[in-house]
Amino acid sequence: MAGRHPFEIRDRDAAARTGVLHTSHGDVATPAFMPVATLGAVRGVSPGELRGLGAQILLANTYHLHERPGEDVIEGQGGLHGFTGWSGPWLTDSGGFQVTSMADRVRIDEEGVRFQSPVDGRTRLLTPERVVEIQEALGSDLAMVLDECRPPSPEDAAAAAEPGLEVRVAMERTLRWAERSLAARRRSDRWLFGIVQGGVSERLRRESARATAALGFDGHAHGGLGLGESREQRSDLIAAVHAELPERAPRYLMGLGRPSDLVSGVEAGVDLFDCVLPTRHGRHGVLFTSRGLLRIRNARFRSDPSPPDADCDCPTCASHSRAYLHHLLRVGEALGARLASIHNLRFYLGVLERARGAIAEGRFASLRDEILALEDVAAD
Amino acid sequence: MAGRHPFEIRDRDAAARTGVLHTSHGDVATPAFMPVATLGAVRGVSPGELRGLGAQILLANTYHLHERPGEDVIEGQGGLHGFTGWSGPWLTDSGGFQVTSMADRVRIDEEGVRFQSPVDGRTRLLTPERVVEIQEALGSDLAMVLDECRPPSPEDAAAAAEPGLEVRVAMERTLRWAERSLAARRRSDRWLFGIVQGGVSERLRRESARATAALGFDGHAHGGLGLGESREQRSDLIAAVHAELPERAPRYLMGLGRPSDLVSGVEAGVDLFDCVLPTRHGRHGVLFTSRGLLRIRNARFRSDPSPPDADCDCPTCASHSRAYLHHLLRVGEALGARLASIHNLRFYLGVLERARGAIAEGRFASLRDEILALEDVAAD
Repeated sequence: MAGRHPFEIRDRDAAARTGVLHTSHGDVATPAFMPVATLGAVRGVSPGELRGLGAQILLANTYHLHERPGEDVIEGQGGLHGFTGWSGPWLTDSGGFQVTSMADRVRIDEEGVRFQSPVDGRTRLLTPERVVEIQEALGSDLAMVLDECRPPSPEDAAAAAEPGLEVRVAMERTLRWAERSLAARRRSDRWLFGIVQGGVSERLRRESARATAALGFDGHAHGGLGLGESREQRSDLIAAVHAELPERAPRYLMGLGRPSDLVSGVEAGVDLFDCVLPTRHGRHGVLFTSRGLLRIRNARFRSDPSPPDADCDCPTCASHSRAYLHHLLRVGEALGARLASIHNLRFYLGVLERARGAIAEGRFASLRDEILALEDVAAD
Repeated sequence: MAGRHPFEIRDRDAAARTGVLHTSHGDVATPAFMPVATLGAVRGVSPGELRGLGAQILLANTYHLHERPGEDVIEGQGGLHGFTGWSGPWLTDSGGFQVTSMADRVRIDEEGVRFQSPVDGRTRLLTPERVVEIQEALGSDLAMVLDECRPPSPEDAAAAAEPGLEVRVAMERTLRWAERSLAARRRSDRWLFGIVQGGVSERLRRESARATAALGFDGHAHGGLGLGESREQRSDLIAAVHAELPERAPRYLMGLGRPSDLVSGVEAGVDLFDCVLPTRHGRHGVLFTSRGLLRIRNARFRSDPSPPDADCDCPTCASHSRAYLHHLLRVGEALGARLASIHNLRFYLGVLERARGAIAEGRFASLRDEILALEDVAAD
């Protein structure tokens, strides 16, 4: 695989594009949505079910798996593929976001991130080198560099116009860590992604993108978005960054978002997405449907014999009624969260399948409009 | 189906027997284990998975489904079969045990059981007639009469020799309720079971069995067992009751138990079993295996690449290691409880499958000894 380019672009529709991402564990048709398996499993859903739903690649969290069970265990079981039974591609995030969002227990300096483990209370140090090493032990096909994701502050609005010192410091440190990450890399058959930072400042994000691109990563991610900015603001920031990145490297919008975020991202040329929303909403009984959001716990679904979404091809909609899901989620029965998560994951994966088809046929704008029109609409 | 006998005995091995229970929704090969779907679902496990594991019939709880979603909803969706997607046979218990174990909020008199609903705090009255009516609305294939299950008291040891007034009062009231239940029955295509009570007194249980049998039920259940008596004591009580019951009616040991309880029951001629243990133990990471109990959260399984049980044919053992289950159950990931429950259900269903084969071949005693030898043994 060494020397082979990880990514090929196939079709274009304005800035949107389809492509194929080659990994050691199979190809991924992009744009793609990656179900989130933080701890090595997608909340209650099995690998076989995920394949049936059209998932191509899963995402796991480096920091959480480092804590439990430890990368040594996973490496000893054939990496994430052997350990979990999902033998397709895996992406691991760096854990930087999880760690730095632990607020007051964290200290960041040039060496890395020091924090108290919430698992055993002991001090941990995550360095850029260590994070690459852990991900190589986990065996992920796509790895992310450690980045400093600065949480949004009241000064961020001002920073957008004239970025303050803190945003710049974090962005520049992320660049130095990116260089160290590349130097620490031992496996050439796994792809390493750089992460663009810079808060909500277009100037800083462009600068970060240019400098990150110059380092020669296999792909690039948008970090630190979805933390308060408007969707319009985010779309502008994404487009600005893409102007600075090489076309032929895949682009990943980390941790976002709603279906509207997916189509906005695709429109701007994003290739990879992940989000916990399908499973989190599923557990709370909020279903994504072709007619908008369906809050299945609502009393009006108590006796509704129709499937959650008549236009959906998922196993939940094939076999179960709204009334049954309403009941299961009301009484807190685990099967309810599972059936709702399965439906929501299929909705997300289906949107991206349709996006790939629409781009190939030059009609992505109409799919985008269809999905945007569902935003905040209550179904039926 | 009217006029057809619900049950045929096929093979015998001493008191143990195999048979076929005919229902409107298919036949059940006995002895059979019924996975417990208290609220209309087996904790996180789907109807399709249950079929794959060899389940033939499920058990739901009349009282809980009466509270939520209400039998009107379930009746409107084609009964339990249409509502849940499990189209095979259903047994519903009467809810008597659940209600009377709510202790101080319960008042029992000749009319029925009055209690405060834990769901909405309002007073409910369950009468024998109402319980039959609710079960007919739920559409269950096998229904149980309302019984008074007296919780064990300190006087129970004495009562075994010389039953006290309370045990007799409850047993006799259960008999009067049984008569009222038969009179309330409207559907002849569903089977109604009487319940034998009498605490741990053999004399009272024999008396209860004789009188219940005389009423002409389709089948009979052992009520009020598994509440403190030893397994030997229980086996004697079961055998004594069977001597008073007609051979050609199916016998159901309610709510028990461990694998050893299953084989002891089969040996005494029991045909139907249910228990929450496979799923409850599964959620807590306790696995039943061919070598004994495996507490998968134990540190020694952290890196164990072998399947939970090398002799097991379940989907969990086919695809996942002890190390993965250990991790999932340690971190509280929902997939862990599901995979462990699936394995345990398969173990239970497999024991009964093997029991049917062993009885047919006249070698049940050796299977019984094999399962009894596993009791309280830690695997590996």
